[in-house]
Amino acid sequence: MDTIGVGILGFGTVGAGVAQGLLANREVLRERTGLDLELRRVADLDTTTDRGVALPEGVLTADAKAAIHDPAVQVVVELIGGTGVARTFVEEALRAGKPVVTANKKLLAEAGAPLFALAAERGVDLFFGASVGGGIPIIRSLRDGLAGTRIETIYGILNGTCNYILTAMEREGRPFEEVLADAQRLGFAEANPTLDVDGFDTLHKAAILAALAYGIAPDVHALPVQGIRGAVGAADIAQARELGYRIKLLAIVKHSPDGLELRVAPTLVPADGMLGSVSGVFNAAMVKSDLDDWTLYYGRGAGRLPTAATVIGDIAEAARNLAAGTHRAVAVPRAAAPVRVKPLGECVSRFYARLSLKDEPGSLAAATGAFARHGVSIRSAVQRGAASDGFAQVIVITHEARRADMDAALAEIAAGAASGAAPVCLGIEE
Amino acid sequence: MDTIGVGILGFGTVGAGVAQGLLANREVLRERTGLDLELRRVADLDTTTDRGVALPEGVLTADAKAAIHDPAVQVVVELIGGTGVARTFVEEALRAGKPVVTANKKLLAEAGAPLFALAAERGVDLFFGASVGGGIPIIRSLRDGLAGTRIETIYGILNGTCNYILTAMEREGRPFEEVLADAQRLGFAEANPTLDVDGFDTLHKAAILAALAYGIAPDVHALPVQGIRGAVGAADIAQARELGYRIKLLAIVKHSPDGLELRVAPTLVPADGMLGSVSGVFNAAMVKSDLDDWTLYYGRGAGRLPTAATVIGDIAEAARNLAAGTHRAVAVPRAAAPVRVKPLGECVSRFYARLSLKDEPGSLAAATGAFARHGVSIRSAVQRGAASDGFAQVIVITHEARRADMDAALAEIAAGAASGAAPVCLGIEE
Repeated sequence: MDTIGVGILGFGTVGAGVAQGLLANREVLRERTGLDLELRRVADLDTTTDRGVALPEGVLTADAKAAIHDPAVQVVVELIGGTGVARTFVEEALRAGKPVVTANKKLLAEAGAPLFALAAERGVDLFFGASVGGGIPIIRSLRDGLAGTRIETIYGILNGTCNYILTAMEREGRPFEEVLADAQRLGFAEANPTLDVDGFDTLHKAAILAALAYGIAPDVHALPVQGIRGAVGAADIAQARELGYRIKLLAIVKHSPDGLELRVAPTLVPADGMLGSVSGVFNAAMVKSDLDDWTLYYGRGAGRLPTAATVIGDIAEAARNLAAGTHRAVAVPRAAAPVRVKPLGECVSRFYARLSLKDEPGSLAAATGAFARHGVSIRSAVQRGAASDGFAQVIVITHEARRADMDAALAEIAAGAASGAAPVCLGIEE
Repeated sequence: MDTIGVGILGFGTVGAGVAQGLLANREVLRERTGLDLELRRVADLDTTTDRGVALPEGVLTADAKAAIHDPAVQVVVELIGGTGVARTFVEEALRAGKPVVTANKKLLAEAGAPLFALAAERGVDLFFGASVGGGIPIIRSLRDGLAGTRIETIYGILNGTCNYILTAMEREGRPFEEVLADAQRLGFAEANPTLDVDGFDTLHKAAILAALAYGIAPDVHALPVQGIRGAVGAADIAQARELGYRIKLLAIVKHSPDGLELRVAPTLVPADGMLGSVSGVFNAAMVKSDLDDWTLYYGRGAGRLPTAATVIGDIAEAARNLAAGTHRAVAVPRAAAPVRVKPLGECVSRFYARLSLKDEPGSLAAATGAFARHGVSIRSAVQRGAASDGFAQVIVITHEARRADMDAALAEIAAGAASGAAPVCLGIEE
């Protein structure tokens, strides 16, 4: 049986998980791959902190460069993160003709194209299965299982922090700020939660999925993004629930002849459907293809061991290719023709809106008139609860409408004399 | 760009879907694989029936052997089904040194081991991704994504006919026989529904998943199987729903130090969980591994195009390997040590039981006494609805218990003077 030497760069949370998994499941990997995967180097500047993993004598080193170039190391695993030394080390390994496995979403989003070009030039693998969705096989599925299909739609619940917060807000009926503070105390949210709760993490992941599905390299800074902070209140979660929906922070990738929707927004989904059932820190991606109809992939989107499981799956594939003297010739597709990303205003969906209107004759008529003037057709408009402070809450569900028309109608309503607090508006996908 | 010639044996439902997908998505496959997959032969004894697919001139033939040996055909796709000529043709293709893709569950269950041995001997691929779960990537995930993990539990909803029937029974409150008749009329169930509704189809699939997860070759005839016919009544579906559960026909594969649970049974699962949300003809497999916690794979378990999507994914992988001059060295793992499959009586779970007891003093005490005598601890026992005919329905939920103890207690209750109709007993998994 061939032995393949593995070197890990970065002995943090995921690095320790991968080391632990490789050591604990070496026999399982032998049975499944026919290869002996031996952990030979783990490089980290900090060689003293206890990570709870007993590495074999001589494996831990502070010298990442030496680990990369060690002839005993045949597969390099980058788990440092960021785009600084991580990028340098990945390039150095690829140049040395060694396949690289990374879970580094930021690196891929910012330098994916040149890195894949370098890997192709050197004829080695560059795998990144854990960069989106941690423990769920969405990248592998887009690449392999769905290789023969045209992807029409991807919905993703791709940020565990946001899904944890939304789930807790619904279950406990508590406001965003309180639940966020709890999540921070419990370690489910960062001290600076911007990347998560304002939707940017989900957006980066959506961009990688779109790149895989359509062979495009979207500029993430130009994409529409709305997070859950300031956009989803306890009142909307409760109203959505009464209507049979749950609110999820959704990555939306939707292909149509006139362009691609590629955006992130809190969105109503059916509560009893598969996406509506994804609760807590779990993630899921739901994909509609021309052949395979809807498929869904669900699991933990982050965490030491789930992410390690996916990284080890990639290591096993890199090792198999190495043993067979081959590599994955096409890692990321290139679109034959450019794909236009739609501006938000062109996106079409049904909408949920919560209006605050003076509780007096004519105010609802004025609001519904505004929708009509902008071509937005209303499916239902219901006053919910009694007016306190002289303003009534009116919940409007629309038929399919352009977002620009919806926004124009809401702006007119907000400017009207009958309007109280600013209207809330969320899309519905089902 | 390399061109790889594909030959399909069997121009039935799935064969036509694969032909259609290969022709329609040739450009997508070029982008994703870097190879041109050309459909060169489709062999079927019936060359006249219109399948709604426009094959290029000269592709359709009645001569399967000639198609297998045609030098223009490099990947052979077996979609004939059964274990007769299908097996002969698969062996012939492998002997000719050509990789084979099949969706033939029966062939794998009955002749998997010799076929994989032959493929290994000839150094070619034998792929079977669509043999379980049609359009869902459960086989690929067990083989690749979870390659570095120890599989602890697999729950599968793997038969679309049963799930359609159970979903309709719950939604419409109708009895099994009526819904089955509807399903047969609509084409969701066979005229002879035994394979589906009595659980055998699910059992065959469970055996293939266990083979992949544990490297065993279980004798399916010796495994415990219970279907939905005669085992799940409208009353139990309604009672389960009130308790927050749904009843699903579940493939259960569960590993523990004392052996492997490998069986099929109608089972209560939480209604608001992921498995409980799988409705209609959709399938899902939920896997717990030591590293990746719970993951779930969901989609259409059958059907022309969903199954074709998975078959085409396999063809693409076989073609890539062929172009790279390699093959998948280890297709199915072999267990290092034998794995003992537990008899049903040893399986441990919580249970739901519906007892029919005379509505008179002492009858509940006698029943609960029987549970106590057999070491089954009761979590709740509630009389549901008023007694009609002098008998009350009592719904019992137990703590974890051995099935043998549960059966002994129920036998004692059924033999007692207070018992009406025979008790119903179903496991609970959550």
